[in-house]
Amino acid sequence: MQPYAELSLEELQELRTQLSAKYREFQLKDLKLNMSRGKPSAEQLDLSMGMMDVLNSDEDLICEDGTDCRNYGVLTGIREAKILIGDMMEVAPENVIIYGNSSLNVMFDTVSRSMTHGVMGCTPWCKLDKVKFLCPVPGYDRHFGITEYFGIEMINVPLLGDGPDMDMVEKLVAEDDSIKGIWCVPKYSNPTGNSYSDQTVRRLARLKPAAPDFRIYWDNAYGIHHLYDHDQDHLIEILAECKRAGNPDMVYKFSSTSKITFPGSGIAAIAASSNNLEDIEKQLKYQTIGHDKVNQLRHVRFFKDIHGMVEHMRRHADILRPKFEAVEETLEEELGGLGIGTWTKPNGGYFISFDSMEGCAKHIVARCKKAGLVMTGAGATFPYGKDPHDSNIRIAPSYPPLDDLKIAMKLFALCVKLVSVEKLIVDKKAAEV
Amino acid sequence: MQPYAELSLEELQELRTQLSAKYREFQLKDLKLNMSRGKPSAEQLDLSMGMMDVLNSDEDLICEDGTDCRNYGVLTGIREAKILIGDMMEVAPENVIIYGNSSLNVMFDTVSRSMTHGVMGCTPWCKLDKVKFLCPVPGYDRHFGITEYFGIEMINVPLLGDGPDMDMVEKLVAEDDSIKGIWCVPKYSNPTGNSYSDQTVRRLARLKPAAPDFRIYWDNAYGIHHLYDHDQDHLIEILAECKRAGNPDMVYKFSSTSKITFPGSGIAAIAASSNNLEDIEKQLKYQTIGHDKVNQLRHVRFFKDIHGMVEHMRRHADILRPKFEAVEETLEEELGGLGIGTWTKPNGGYFISFDSMEGCAKHIVARCKKAGLVMTGAGATFPYGKDPHDSNIRIAPSYPPLDDLKIAMKLFALCVKLVSVEKLIVDKKAAEV
Repeated sequence: MQPYAELSLEELQELRTQLSAKYREFQLKDLKLNMSRGKPSAEQLDLSMGMMDVLNSDEDLICEDGTDCRNYGVLTGIREAKILIGDMMEVAPENVIIYGNSSLNVMFDTVSRSMTHGVMGCTPWCKLDKVKFLCPVPGYDRHFGITEYFGIEMINVPLLGDGPDMDMVEKLVAEDDSIKGIWCVPKYSNPTGNSYSDQTVRRLARLKPAAPDFRIYWDNAYGIHHLYDHDQDHLIEILAECKRAGNPDMVYKFSSTSKITFPGSGIAAIAASSNNLEDIEKQLKYQTIGHDKVNQLRHVRFFKDIHGMVEHMRRHADILRPKFEAVEETLEEELGGLGIGTWTKPNGGYFISFDSMEGCAKHIVARCKKAGLVMTGAGATFPYGKDPHDSNIRIAPSYPPLDDLKIAMKLFALCVKLVSVEKLIVDKKAAEV
Repeated sequence: MQPYAELSLEELQELRTQLSAKYREFQLKDLKLNMSRGKPSAEQLDLSMGMMDVLNSDEDLICEDGTDCRNYGVLTGIREAKILIGDMMEVAPENVIIYGNSSLNVMFDTVSRSMTHGVMGCTPWCKLDKVKFLCPVPGYDRHFGITEYFGIEMINVPLLGDGPDMDMVEKLVAEDDSIKGIWCVPKYSNPTGNSYSDQTVRRLARLKPAAPDFRIYWDNAYGIHHLYDHDQDHLIEILAECKRAGNPDMVYKFSSTSKITFPGSGIAAIAASSNNLEDIEKQLKYQTIGHDKVNQLRHVRFFKDIHGMVEHMRRHADILRPKFEAVEETLEEELGGLGIGTWTKPNGGYFISFDSMEGCAKHIVARCKKAGLVMTGAGATFPYGKDPHDSNIRIAPSYPPLDDLKIAMKLFALCVKLVSVEKLIVDKKAAEV
């Protein structure tokens, strides 16, 4: 295929006419497609229906240590859930606190507690003039939502193929003691699907932050969410690496079973050093008498152990893989060689990240919407919803059935072409003036 | 029985010898009894085991409006849960937000949000020099724990038989705009078991607080937790009464199914005016994608409707009633007419409140402990753990089996007698000097 940039104005105008005709055909189909969020499909949810059977009135709801899960108590989670989730998070059960149904809520709480009570004896952030977070971009909109809600200033840091721009991160955290955190989705990142390299993790663990209460917010949401059995990304375990680097308290690690069992009805957890956990428990004991132990027990009885969970994730992969491959094939077929977009090819997670020509993303998403396809809003992957290049679009292939997804991606590619051609025409005309 | 105060020094000393001998007999029994918390008994928990069967892999997990409860979304709770919990809380479903498993956590969040973001546009409390709460005493220790955690100054207000001392409440909230809330357990109060009178609720709804962000924290934890079928306390519904009084936004109402199904695995909720709910949702949308809808659906399918829930509560009452009656009988038999203690006779809830002679509560609880009976710590029913008269002891009859409870109450009464006699001896000797 000839790159669009090499076409003449007349060729571009002719192309626009053809693409517009195709676009109108799509509009007549009255499509209602949604690729906006990283939601599992109904088929994936069916994989966990057996979890509804493991606890019933013929079973006891008693832990191995004799605790009756039906009653009050056990603030930090039942032992067998800590072992299972610890194995999932690659940490010892002693370093885990099991929470409720949402790791987002745990992150919110973590920031909220730092605002009102500070981190391990440091000044509460609400008493400081300025608090800042580093935000590798593109990133997860709900992370940026939490920091924005608390009035925390967000600083964009480019997310490269192997993680955040570490030169920039190292410099900023060493210089500025108002920088209190960095949001990280280290594995199969939201939205790029890329993972941090060993080198990146090592440099993060070795940071020398000016602020003693600086923490890495390590949202390992896709830790075991591989698409392939052998082509799996591997991440150095951050708690152990921070410990080895002499920074044992510098990281909070978050995870949940949301995309393993049922989103919204899973279990979430934080893992951290014993110093951090002690600090957290000072809040936790006032906050609740305990989280949902019955649901913790339900998860343990369903999976039995980490091997059971990993086998379960293979079944998710079998459903997700063809969807990711369909997206990649369509993008390659439709856009390959045209020079109007690039995209990632992840080995896991829930997203593919697409970068259009500068200044096109909003128009592309709007075009998709007018033909019945809802994508994640352009800009959502950046703090304050502002993509400085207006080029990043997050593709979430998981939710629609495969046939719908193929139609959706054809439409998406068409919108990319149409908007790109329109931009090139405007640019060419401007250059002629 | 002759009141102890009328006994001579010699009679008291003789009595002490007898009581001490009995106490030593108890000590030899090696008892391990716990009446410290308002926990349902295993027999009560068994009542809800059927809830483990209503959702299974043969059932769909779909709401009446088509929502798949297994997936993300529905921030404020599924419609049918709002109807059920609305009926339980005596408010319209539109005024309800369903949360996770813990109403304590909802209260914590409510205070935390007020600290960081303020209430409906008012200054965040963390920016104020001083924030105060009124605390009717005796009250619930975990309420006082939350306000203490956030550095909120607590002001004791006497809890009379028909609710807080309203003359004092009216005066204080009208004068002092740093008073931002009052903790209330209006029905079958923790720990007295008494309920607020109609007059008290009307006066609360008509308060004229100096602070626009003053709120009544209405923890209706025992709204349908009656012991009897006819002798039931009735409470004027506070949201409607505040609306009628022209103070529609002045109250947050909290409740949960903790003592209806499984504590820690139930569902909690807040009810409030639409203005308050809008304010709360501004936080909620950053805090979580949604609470556990599967558990909401489980509760709805189990109870079907409020009548089902009320019938379920009759079965709880059948288990609890003999325990409350056993406590009252023992207290009457052992302590009636002695003039060394008074106690409440509630129609519902989880507690009986005992008041010893001044300066005796700590000693009584300590004596109980040394003979193998753990009571709620003396002072726990007051802010900062400080009972100015050292007289209030919370009795929680729900958890031990009936036979154990009878032994425990015999021991308790013995400890009351022994400590009272010792105090009277000291007093008499001091008077002689």
